[in-house]
Amino acid sequence: MNIKPIGDKVVIKPIAVEETTKSGIVLPGSAQEKPQQGEVIAVGDGIYQNGVKIPMELKVGDRVVYGKFGGIDVKLNGEEVIIMAEKDVLVVLK
Amino acid sequence: MNIKPIGDKVVIKPIAVEETTKSGIVLPGSAQEKPQQGEVIAVGDGIYQNGVKIPMELKVGDRVVYGKFGGIDVKLNGEEVIIMAEKDVLVVLK
Amino acid sequence: MNIKPIGDKVVIKPIAVEETTKSGIVLPGSAQEKPQQGEVIAVGDGIYQNGVKIPMELKVGDRVVYGKFGGIDVKLNGEEVIIMAEKDVLVVLK
Amino acid sequence: MNIKPIGDKVVIKPIAVEETTKSGIVLPGSAQEKPQQGEVIAVGDGIYQNGVKIPMELKVGDRVVYGKFGGIDVKLNGEEVIIMAEKDVLVVLK
Amino acid sequence: MNIKPIGDKVVIKPIAVEETTKSGIVLPGSAQEKPQQGEVIAVGDGIYQNGVKIPMELKVGDRVVYGKFGGIDVKLNGEEVIIMAEKDVLVVLK
Amino acid sequence: MNIKPIGDKVVIKPIAVEETTKSGIVLPGSAQEKPQQGEVIAVGDGIYQNGVKIPMELKVGDRVVYGKFGGIDVKLNGEEVIIMAEKDVLVVLK
Amino acid sequence: MNIKPIGDKVVIKPIAVEETTKSGIVLPGSAQEKPQQGEVIAVGDGIYQNGVKIPMELKVGDRVVYGKFGGIDVKLNGEEVIIMAEKDVLVVLK
Repeated sequence: MNIKPIGDKVVIKPIAVEETTKSGIVLPGSAQEKPQQGEVIAVGDGIYQNGVKIPMELKVGDRVVYGKFGGIDVKLNGEEVIIMAEKDVLVVLK
Repeated sequence: MNIKPIGDKVVIKPIAVEETTKSGIVLPGSAQEKPQQGEVIAVGDGIYQNGVKIPMELKVGDRVVYGKFGGIDVKLNGEEVIIMAEKDVLVVLK
Repeated sequence: MNIKPIGDKVVIKPIAVEETTKSGIVLPGSAQEKPQQGEVIAVGDGIYQNGVKIPMELKVGDRVVYGKFGGIDVKLNGEEVIIMAEKDVLVVLK
Repeated sequence: MNIKPIGDKVVIKPIAVEETTKSGIVLPGSAQEKPQQGEVIAVGDGIYQNGVKIPMELKVGDRVVYGKFGGIDVKLNGEEVIIMAEKDVLVVLK
Repeated sequence: MNIKPIGDKVVIKPIAVEETTKSGIVLPGSAQEKPQQGEVIAVGDGIYQNGVKIPMELKVGDRVVYGKFGGIDVKLNGEEVIIMAEKDVLVVLK
Repeated sequence: MNIKPIGDKVVIKPIAVEETTKSGIVLPGSAQEKPQQGEVIAVGDGIYQNGVKIPMELKVGDRVVYGKFGGIDVKLNGEEVIIMAEKDVLVVLK
Repeated sequence: MNIKPIGDKVVIKPIAVEETTKSGIVLPGSAQEKPQQGEVIAVGDGIYQNGVKIPMELKVGDRVVYGKFGGIDVKLNGEEVIIMAEKDVLVVLK
């Protein structure tokens, strides 16, 4: 099933990030707070501004960091994803 | 009876989605929380931006996923539908 | 007496809608919650956007569905009407 | 003394409207809640939008209906008037 | 000392207005609530809108009526004045 | 060290203003409430509006009066300054 | 790993600033409240305004002062950074 976000929205699949605590124990991402990294799996066509369509910066496959706000958790095809406006994504990791 | 939404609004007929719980039992959609999928049954002509009419992305028959906010539940022709601005729809499933 | 709304406002005369309850009893609209259907009885000339006047979608005689917000109840010529901006009307029934 | 409102403001002199209660007794307007009808006694030159001055719809002498919000009660020349932006006026009665 | 407001701000010197109470006693303005009339003593050059500078309506010497909000009380040259955006002034008395 | 504000921000060095109380005692500014006068020590290049850069009104050396809101207190080079958008400055004293 | 902020966002690495207290003891920055100085380590391409891309003022390597609001703390490559819109940065120190 193909997914097409509306406007400037993007669909992100969260990625659990391994992290070493100060005591040196590696905790798998799932044992910690809500993930803040993910992979972009779908990108909208963009919104209009003053009658001009603004190009999107993100593309499918981008690895992104996003904050804990602005996104909506949805289950698509049995998979938990988060949908947010492109401007609520913080950075792309290249 | 024909339905024409005003501006950038769309009318969506909710679709109950079957879902398998972790224990493997299939619950019919109606036994769960408010559905988040639906079919677009009417689309407005769009709103103006800076004096220019912005085209709508959605069309009748689109299967969409929408969040639990922004929409207004209305009974039209004896059928429960939800009306929201196109920008409050999250994604189209193709 | 003629009524002319300011800007993008419309004046709507609520219409009580008969409805059959699940048990099959027909309740007259007045015995239920605030009506959500009405007939447009006056339409403003529209507002300006970027110095350009935006045309109105609604016209006198349109049967509309509106939500429970945004409107102001006023008694005009001894008749209870609701006045709201066109964008707060949900759909036209044709 | 001449009164000139700033921008898109208008000055309205409230008019008490006689009203027959359900039991048939006529109550003078002053014995009821705050009046919602008035006569426009001064009109501003309008505000700019995108550098273009937008014409006013109202003119001195118009009889208008206005809601209970948005206006500021001021005593001018010993007379209680209400000042509001033109867009907060609901309809003109002609 | 010369005073030049920034943008669309104006400086107003409040004027106490004598008022006759219902019982006929004249109360000097200072014994009542905060004055709502004043004289414009300085006017800004105006703000830009869409890159175009919008002309100011008020000029030094105008007698104005203003509401109880939006203004900031400041002591300039030992004199209590109120500074507000031109749009928060209600009317000019001519 | 040179300081360059971002956008339409300005950096202001507060100036304590001597003031005579009603009983005639001169209180040095530091013994009273937060100062409301200052000297502009750095000015940003301005912000864009509709793609056009809007010129700044203030320049280094201007003596200004500002309200108690909108500004952020920062210690720069060991000196307490306040940083605010130009539009939050009230007047220039010339 | 390369970091590319979205839109007008910048990534800032906080810098602890040594400060002498009134009693003359030098406290290392880490023993005090949240730092307000940092070095810009990544800059977005800017946002569109009216269909025109607005150039960024900041560049990588700039030493900036920022307030305690608007930013989001994120750990990138094991390093605590703060991400904020360029307009929420206060000044550049040159």
